Amino acid sequence: MTSHTIEIRVRYAECDPMGVAHHAAFPIWFEMGRTELLRANGGDYRAMEANDQLLAVVKLDVTYRSPARYDDVLTLVTTVEKATRAKVIHTYALSRDGVLLAEASTTLACINRAGRVQPIPEALLGINY
Amino acid sequence: MTSHTIEIRVRYAECDPMGVAHHAAFPIWFEMGRTELLRANGGDYRAMEANDQLLAVVKLDVTYRSPARYDDVLTLVTTVEKATRAKVIHTYALSRDGVLLAEASTTLACINRAGRVQPIPEALLGINY
Amino acid sequence: MTSHTIEIRVRYAECDPMGVAHHAAFPIWFEMGRTELLRANGGDYRAMEANDQLLAVVKLDVTYRSPARYDDVLTLVTTVEKATRAKVIHTYALSRDGVLLAEASTTLACINRAGRVQPIPEALLGINY
Amino acid sequence: MTSHTIEIRVRYAECDPMGVAHHAAFPIWFEMGRTELLRANGGDYRAMEANDQLLAVVKLDVTYRSPARYDDVLTLVTTVEKATRAKVIHTYALSRDGVLLAEASTTLACINRAGRVQPIPEALLGINY
Repeated sequence: MTSHTIEIRVRYAECDPMGVAHHAAFPIWFEMGRTELLRANGGDYRAMEANDQLLAVVKLDVTYRSPARYDDVLTLVTTVEKATRAKVIHTYALSRDGVLLAEASTTLACINRAGRVQPIPEALLGINY
Repeated sequence: MTSHTIEIRVRYAECDPMGVAHHAAFPIWFEMGRTELLRANGGDYRAMEANDQLLAVVKLDVTYRSPARYDDVLTLVTTVEKATRAKVIHTYALSRDGVLLAEASTTLACINRAGRVQPIPEALLGINY
Repeated sequence: MTSHTIEIRVRYAECDPMGVAHHAAFPIWFEMGRTELLRANGGDYRAMEANDQLLAVVKLDVTYRSPARYDDVLTLVTTVEKATRAKVIHTYALSRDGVLLAEASTTLACINRAGRVQPIPEALLGINY
Repeated sequence: MTSHTIEIRVRYAECDPMGVAHHAAFPIWFEMGRTELLRANGGDYRAMEANDQLLAVVKLDVTYRSPARYDDVLTLVTTVEKATRAKVIHTYALSRDGVLLAEASTTLACINRAGRVQPIPEALLGINY
């Protein structure tokens, strides 16, 4: 599959003095979405790292539309938007009760510990379902 | 002034199993850059909040070029790129020893606790120098 | 009930260059355990805060026995150990597959936004079941 | 030297909906204190890790006396309290303008990546001055 949905409950420590989730919490949630999309496709990011296949975020774009609050249960849809041998682009839609809170995209490259570019593993592309 | 430079030492807790600063640490550093640019212009974000002027990040774009590592001393240049009455766009250049590690931009809106849009305070625009 | 169990999957961003969950992630998990114990007793911490009943951590003790790793599914048992009108002591046992990774305790006081001590709400004491 | 003082400015992202620094931010500051105490003694934690000498926190005790707020400049005194060949105990005093906000202690063990206990490096003990 190329798309996967998870639920996230906003933690107290993720919220700031405005009473809403801090904007730096969102990329952490997106990473959780990628981990679970990979798992749903039979992949395992921990095993990838043990195999010297690291995923480096090279680009992150987030549009924040409405705040998330402490204890909210959010729905995150993570989608493989586009992939080449060297890069994979995911998009994210974060919502609460059907209301879109944020949209985002990331570009990831696969590298090894020496920093050399590796081909993107197939499980990450969502084509093995 | 419309531009300001700070130094940031990468914390151990900001680094991940790849041994580099996690990509979600960068927006926190950018926020520090904004706080110090505001202070350099005679502003005070804590006082703004007490005055019911909150800054909400509505857009964040980061391009990661090279990793930052634990204990690195980074240089962050924060610049007011463009401002209207309702929004302010900052750009960021993060480097180590003259090597650019990341470039970014954010768009902020000024709101009050009720969520109503407020005019952007002048000190934030860097025009009071 | 005075005890409640949750599962936590270790996030990538919570892990450090040693490849294990950073020790500062644990208090955040304990806070999640408290939130869910409170909810299981019909309480709601978000409503408490709206009602000007804030919980301040006044003491935290953690013993780390074995590391937690990225993507581990951990089991956290949170227990109300002791409570007076002014304070509540929770204990925590964090394990993975039956192996104890950490033990901890916290002492919380209930205060209002002005910093004045409030009586501990009954739902927090786990006596309303 | 066995004691070292640093200043820490509280970041916005470290503060929670109560408007104060979240209690899980404190152990991160204590770690910064240890890094700088080590550096002041001619040590370098990054080099230690490269040399397969990792420091694992095995115990953490914090007493929170008064809140720290966004943008506060805090003073942290880190002290080597006691050391054996296998463990080192640090104590911490965190204050703002002479008012004590928190006291803490940690116990660290030195291990290698295989998890085997290593002797505590001398620079960490503060005896090389």
